[in-house]
Amino acid sequence: MPGLFITFEGGDGSGKSTQSAILVDWLQGQGREVVVSREPGGTDVGLELRQLVLHWRGEIAPRAEALIYAADRAHNVATKVRPALERGAIVVQDRYLDSSVAYQGAGRVLGADEVRDLSLWATEGLLPDLTVLLDLHEGADRLAGRTQYDRLEAAGDDFHARVRDAYLELAEAEPERFLVLDARDTIENIAASIRSRVERLLG
Amino acid sequence: MPGLFITFEGGDGSGKSTQSAILVDWLQGQGREVVVSREPGGTDVGLELRQLVLHWRGEIAPRAEALIYAADRAHNVATKVRPALERGAIVVQDRYLDSSVAYQGAGRVLGADEVRDLSLWATEGLLPDLTVLLDLHEGADRLAGRTQYDRLEAAGDDFHARVRDAYLELAEAEPERFLVLDARDTIENIAASIRSRVERLLG
Repeated sequence: MPGLFITFEGGDGSGKSTQSAILVDWLQGQGREVVVSREPGGTDVGLELRQLVLHWRGEIAPRAEALIYAADRAHNVATKVRPALERGAIVVQDRYLDSSVAYQGAGRVLGADEVRDLSLWATEGLLPDLTVLLDLHEGADRLAGRTQYDRLEAAGDDFHARVRDAYLELAEAEPERFLVLDARDTIENIAASIRSRVERLLG
Repeated sequence: MPGLFITFEGGDGSGKSTQSAILVDWLQGQGREVVVSREPGGTDVGLELRQLVLHWRGEIAPRAEALIYAADRAHNVATKVRPALERGAIVVQDRYLDSSVAYQGAGRVLGADEVRDLSLWATEGLLPDLTVLLDLHEGADRLAGRTQYDRLEAAGDDFHARVRDAYLELAEAEPERFLVLDARDTIENIAASIRSRVERLLG
């Protein structure tokens, strides 16, 4: 396809939205058509699914949750991402299938492979041209600054550590697709690294 | 599992709810615990998904639609059907995976096999002990009574004919699971056939 599909991945607070906004501004300044999206909730149907999966006051069965994310992804790709890429636009998106694999895999109920397969079926195999992973080693920082041990928080840190490990494994498996950057670097340095990589892809 | 999982399939107007209610009454009269469900919308989460998939005022991408039905099914099976079967209850349900295979397959965008695989992943492979197919040959009746040919209606009839064919193929492939009954027979005759088959299953 003539367009370019760029996704941002990383934990909450890793700076995805800041860096995404800087990249979009720069691309638009170059006269490029940019389509901004996110998952979940990049489309009208997706907003309904996002509301359900993020704000439901009760349990959602793990497979149901994975299928709702996949439904959101299927609709986003079919109605927004793919048409944009086909007409040559650049799609800049907050989270994509790597989020599902990292988070749902880290939850340890579903396997990473089956979550990935589900996403690939949902999207008819669409992978990004570039995935920027803003790597945030927050668990270690928080543990270091803590004086009293708290079991619940430690469990939370375990989960975040598993998500981070899963992300890094995905990046190792596809080094061509991933750009891994330390989220604790300055905004300017991170933005420059991303711009440089995108320039190469456009060039 | 100690319980019994009975599903009703067939087109709208084939008498599924009438026959299901008669069966439920009879089972409860025998002192059995009966759990009634339906898809989509057998659970609280499922009602949200049902509302979205049946009443959305716009297009939903075919894969997204299939995934929403599968999410509803996953949650229904994990939180309602399986727990009931595990404690020995009889689950009587309006529509299950055969509906997805017949309707989405008849839509000709998705293959019957992939729709079935998706449902089996969603439910961890749960198949009904008995599926009552109320077979309604409505297309032929309507065509016979029609004087003027209408292309749009004929297309609708084509779709219904494909759904019916798909149902009959599913029943042929699993004769042990399916009980196929002519929906134009009397309510009493149909109810008697179903009761007789369920009595055998209850042993």
